[in-house]
Amino acid sequence: MNQLGIVKRNIERADRAAVDQLATFGAATVHEAMGRVGLMKPYMRPIYPGAMVGGTAVTVLLHPGDNWMLHVAAEQIQPGDVVVAALTAECTDGFFGDLLATSFVARGARALIIDAGVRDVRVLKEMGFPVWSRAISAKGTIKATLGSVNIPVVCAGVLVNPGDAVVADDDGVVVVPALEAARVAAAAHKREDLEGEKRAKLAAGVLGLDMYGMREPLAKAGLKYVD
Amino acid sequence: MNQLGIVKRNIERADRAAVDQLATFGAATVHEAMGRVGLMKPYMRPIYPGAMVGGTAVTVLLHPGDNWMLHVAAEQIQPGDVVVAALTAECTDGFFGDLLATSFVARGARALIIDAGVRDVRVLKEMGFPVWSRAISAKGTIKATLGSVNIPVVCAGVLVNPGDAVVADDDGVVVVPALEAARVAAAAHKREDLEGEKRAKLAAGVLGLDMYGMREPLAKAGLKYVD
Amino acid sequence: MNQLGIVKRNIERADRAAVDQLATFGAATVHEAMGRVGLMKPYMRPIYPGAMVGGTAVTVLLHPGDNWMLHVAAEQIQPGDVVVAALTAECTDGFFGDLLATSFVARGARALIIDAGVRDVRVLKEMGFPVWSRAISAKGTIKATLGSVNIPVVCAGVLVNPGDAVVADDDGVVVVPALEAARVAAAAHKREDLEGEKRAKLAAGVLGLDMYGMREPLAKAGLKYVD
Amino acid sequence: MNQLGIVKRNIERADRAAVDQLATFGAATVHEAMGRVGLMKPYMRPIYPGAMVGGTAVTVLLHPGDNWMLHVAAEQIQPGDVVVAALTAECTDGFFGDLLATSFVARGARALIIDAGVRDVRVLKEMGFPVWSRAISAKGTIKATLGSVNIPVVCAGVLVNPGDAVVADDDGVVVVPALEAARVAAAAHKREDLEGEKRAKLAAGVLGLDMYGMREPLAKAGLKYVD
Amino acid sequence: MNQLGIVKRNIERADRAAVDQLATFGAATVHEAMGRVGLMKPYMRPIYPGAMVGGTAVTVLLHPGDNWMLHVAAEQIQPGDVVVAALTAECTDGFFGDLLATSFVARGARALIIDAGVRDVRVLKEMGFPVWSRAISAKGTIKATLGSVNIPVVCAGVLVNPGDAVVADDDGVVVVPALEAARVAAAAHKREDLEGEKRAKLAAGVLGLDMYGMREPLAKAGLKYVD
Amino acid sequence: MNQLGIVKRNIERADRAAVDQLATFGAATVHEAMGRVGLMKPYMRPIYPGAMVGGTAVTVLLHPGDNWMLHVAAEQIQPGDVVVAALTAECTDGFFGDLLATSFVARGARALIIDAGVRDVRVLKEMGFPVWSRAISAKGTIKATLGSVNIPVVCAGVLVNPGDAVVADDDGVVVVPALEAARVAAAAHKREDLEGEKRAKLAAGVLGLDMYGMREPLAKAGLKYVD
Repeated sequence: MNQLGIVKRNIERADRAAVDQLATFGAATVHEAMGRVGLMKPYMRPIYPGAMVGGTAVTVLLHPGDNWMLHVAAEQIQPGDVVVAALTAECTDGFFGDLLATSFVARGARALIIDAGVRDVRVLKEMGFPVWSRAISAKGTIKATLGSVNIPVVCAGVLVNPGDAVVADDDGVVVVPALEAARVAAAAHKREDLEGEKRAKLAAGVLGLDMYGMREPLAKAGLKYVD
Repeated sequence: MNQLGIVKRNIERADRAAVDQLATFGAATVHEAMGRVGLMKPYMRPIYPGAMVGGTAVTVLLHPGDNWMLHVAAEQIQPGDVVVAALTAECTDGFFGDLLATSFVARGARALIIDAGVRDVRVLKEMGFPVWSRAISAKGTIKATLGSVNIPVVCAGVLVNPGDAVVADDDGVVVVPALEAARVAAAAHKREDLEGEKRAKLAAGVLGLDMYGMREPLAKAGLKYVD
Repeated sequence: MNQLGIVKRNIERADRAAVDQLATFGAATVHEAMGRVGLMKPYMRPIYPGAMVGGTAVTVLLHPGDNWMLHVAAEQIQPGDVVVAALTAECTDGFFGDLLATSFVARGARALIIDAGVRDVRVLKEMGFPVWSRAISAKGTIKATLGSVNIPVVCAGVLVNPGDAVVADDDGVVVVPALEAARVAAAAHKREDLEGEKRAKLAAGVLGLDMYGMREPLAKAGLKYVD
Repeated sequence: MNQLGIVKRNIERADRAAVDQLATFGAATVHEAMGRVGLMKPYMRPIYPGAMVGGTAVTVLLHPGDNWMLHVAAEQIQPGDVVVAALTAECTDGFFGDLLATSFVARGARALIIDAGVRDVRVLKEMGFPVWSRAISAKGTIKATLGSVNIPVVCAGVLVNPGDAVVADDDGVVVVPALEAARVAAAAHKREDLEGEKRAKLAAGVLGLDMYGMREPLAKAGLKYVD
Repeated sequence: MNQLGIVKRNIERADRAAVDQLATFGAATVHEAMGRVGLMKPYMRPIYPGAMVGGTAVTVLLHPGDNWMLHVAAEQIQPGDVVVAALTAECTDGFFGDLLATSFVARGARALIIDAGVRDVRVLKEMGFPVWSRAISAKGTIKATLGSVNIPVVCAGVLVNPGDAVVADDDGVVVVPALEAARVAAAAHKREDLEGEKRAKLAAGVLGLDMYGMREPLAKAGLKYVD
Repeated sequence: MNQLGIVKRNIERADRAAVDQLATFGAATVHEAMGRVGLMKPYMRPIYPGAMVGGTAVTVLLHPGDNWMLHVAAEQIQPGDVVVAALTAECTDGFFGDLLATSFVARGARALIIDAGVRDVRVLKEMGFPVWSRAISAKGTIKATLGSVNIPVVCAGVLVNPGDAVVADDDGVVVVPALEAARVAAAAHKREDLEGEKRAKLAAGVLGLDMYGMREPLAKAGLKYVD
């Protein structure tokens, strides 16, 4: 129908300050603050460890073996964006390498999230351009079939709308609807505050059993201690 | 029946000296010394490379998506223990993060072995707390269902009894029954001694074919050299 | 029939200069220069990142759980070779560790490519001996069944003839038929030259859409821009 | 946020006549008529062969190991509906068996599509209640956590809105947005008509090469015939 | 150590009457009656649908690619037994075909449960000899390495002791400790009785929501109905 | 290089009588007669059970998502051929449906072996056209990229030359080099004769331990019987 062959130029991006704040919490905390939804499947892994990124989604829908639309997407990138690429069917080909990365960086992209493979990973690491992907593969792609840019896509099991906030680190990739970014950032901030206090107690040897008051509910649930 | 809702407080731990010695040999040598049994499935991978750990097992049986019993297990940890967490069904959620790690470290745990996912892996690496897991995932868990602590469990294909010796490094995770720890350590020691000598010969250019006397059995088995 | 129990001693190796040149381009460029064939499946991963290797193939056919023929293969290694080990059925056991690596290095081998598992990976990394494998596993193997050395094998989905050029890096493993090595090296060289120029343009903010002249074919294919 | 704990009672169902017509074409034809989008991942398999179903989606979002919301969904079923169950994380437990099937049938459901496991499959087959699932498992589930009913869900990689048309047969499961059902049905009808004619020609020995006029484009693309 | 090269001749088999009764309930009901433990992983599938079996376990530990111990196990089979074969490492070879099946049938075996592959499946189906396996493969095995018979094994994630009751049907394979067989059979019987009554109500259109009294706990948990 | 864009018209087919005889033995026996090589990976499964086929290979190399060359291959089919389709990268799309099957049947093809997906499987079953594939998927393909016909290909891990004998049944797919077909058929015949005799003995209760004279080698290997 109408899902293929479309490029949407004007999209509503999540609030930049909220996105930047989300990035500081990491995927796990944001996922909790979201109510434990919005997480991509765990096969999405960073191509090198340690990166921690937040940005606004420019979405792309690709066909297996064809990266034409990544070039179309490059033009839509604004500084602070993260490109989120979904596929119409499973594929591990290397859709993205150092040339496209150079272009994405020139446009201000902060990262690529792709439900497929990438290549030139040694160079990407040297460039410091972070990628979360399902595979690494030297296999290149052709440029022959239309997909779309900035339409809603399903990437690694999660619906991503253009402009949504995306947070990614070594724990995975979480998507926050654009309109919820500020609210989730606030909730994540609150969680984070509480965690510092808890960490200190636990480090001092206090047990979670006591700190969280779990002994009574565990006993009620029937837990039995034996020797 | 009676497998759920139990915490056993007193367990027979493998001899500490034997366990510490086992840790120096690494998983591959210990596995050979065991007679090539006791190895967890190779999907169990360290969350960062280079760790090499030995300890005594505190076992936990968890339900998918529920990490309540890890808090219960924390109280049973003694210095030198390794927590071994099995699941009643496959799950990749992140059952364990930096807060629980802080608590485990405070109790003296040396590592976590879990047939599921973990999160906060960047922080865990900074803390130097080693984990072997089947997945990394930002997805948190709830605290609602009873499992058990210190019962026999099957973790990544291997039966683990509480108190068993566990050895883990970049090659994987091996479990040694508590009563066999000393005997296996002695056998591993013997293998290791022989290996040093072999290594020197091989480095000098001696072929395994000659060093192991393989030429005759290969010829008998029918091996043919052609030009 | 006649595929098992054979060791071929004299093989035609790809031209050394061409192979060394191929190694400088990396797997992705060589794969493109080949016409996008010859790439092993992406489950073949380096045991540590950063290695970049080219060599001539000494091939081995192994049975699951049996590494006897790797010892036989060691004798056939010449400086500059890469050992390529295929299996008659899927297996993740650790067929190769630091002792065999010591022997391979003494013979002049540059790397091992194996469609199975390896072990002692921490030591292999310290030795700087690169391995591409489908798994890491502490599980050792026996020495009981004949396979063959230097026969054509299918490794990770690719036909490898003894003497073929093999190029491997973080992106994967590519096989170039011995007789094509020089031609592919020339083609790869040409690609590489063009890439430098393109990279500079893209870094300066030129879009691939313009640099590659894609706007017209995209419009012809029906791409529509909407606001 | 607001995705969990919601049951939407009034949904816009796709036109019944269009849905019933779509069911007669099967998943492959409908998928083509859609422009080759909307297909669930191929791991979704029927629990018995031969069923061919079309219906309107009642959607459910479930947590791993918890089937509570399937009972909530039952009340929302109207005759002609197909229940589409998505999960917040991967799980193969058996969420659905003969009791729930009995209830679904009583409400007029035509099928279940679930991105998880089911059980009692022998009985389900006897009842003639078709299910497409990712797994079969005897493992039951608990009833403890809220999900939602009739919210947009991502099931096996596809966004499904409540009321969408769902077509499933031995080839897989396709989702057609409710508003597109009539248009897609018409397009599918047109494809089907053309196919009958083509089939007759091909059966008579006419080659696709000639029937589709492929010889010229193949030659242009560079295809070479050799002897 | 001592796990390999052992055949235990005298084992305590679960009570035959209890085992036969368990078989009538099927894997899902028995698994529930067990407290939702003891289920093999769902990759264990029947080679043909419709079989429903219960028996007492004769256990076998096999090495990958070697079926020698299945011949040793044959002698230990008594009428009413089910052979449960575990592997020391993952393998999909065809360890079992029509000849071994003929022998097993002659000894009175009711089924084979094997965490590996089998072959001759067309003939096995004609013979009516049910098998649950992780794979089907024409690849044969050798007879060269000792395993063991009637020792505790871990098969598809479950600990099986010789003599344990095994129940298998289209939903999977459940293991009941020998001493628990009668108790579990009684619990399963009770479940089954209740299910008949529930089925009738649900078929009459009563909702699970009402029959199980779920409306109040759902409301308490925060479920909201919207239009 | 030169692997793509080629159609070889004249190929040497394996001897028809030998191929037809091979088909009667089935994949397992032929695989043993081959010396246990030549078997495709076990993920290649028949789309319906019970088919048993032998034929001569017309090979096709396809790109992911593109079935153009299957139309080219159709013209090269002669009665008694089996089409063997390999892919340049993993893909589960449905490359083949009832229209192509109609054409293949009109040309005299006996089966399709494809390392990818197929669709219209209900109709293919009704037509009685057997297919072994890695997947079933409604997703169609385009016709845009050149592959080749009748070149050597690697399909599901096995090298297949055009004209090779292919044997497929419920146990899998085996490839016999064209020149070896008669010899393998003779060897398979011999195995089959012996099997009949063995089957009778085993059915009469003779143990394999005695029939194969295994007791002594088992004792020598160290097998111990305990009570």
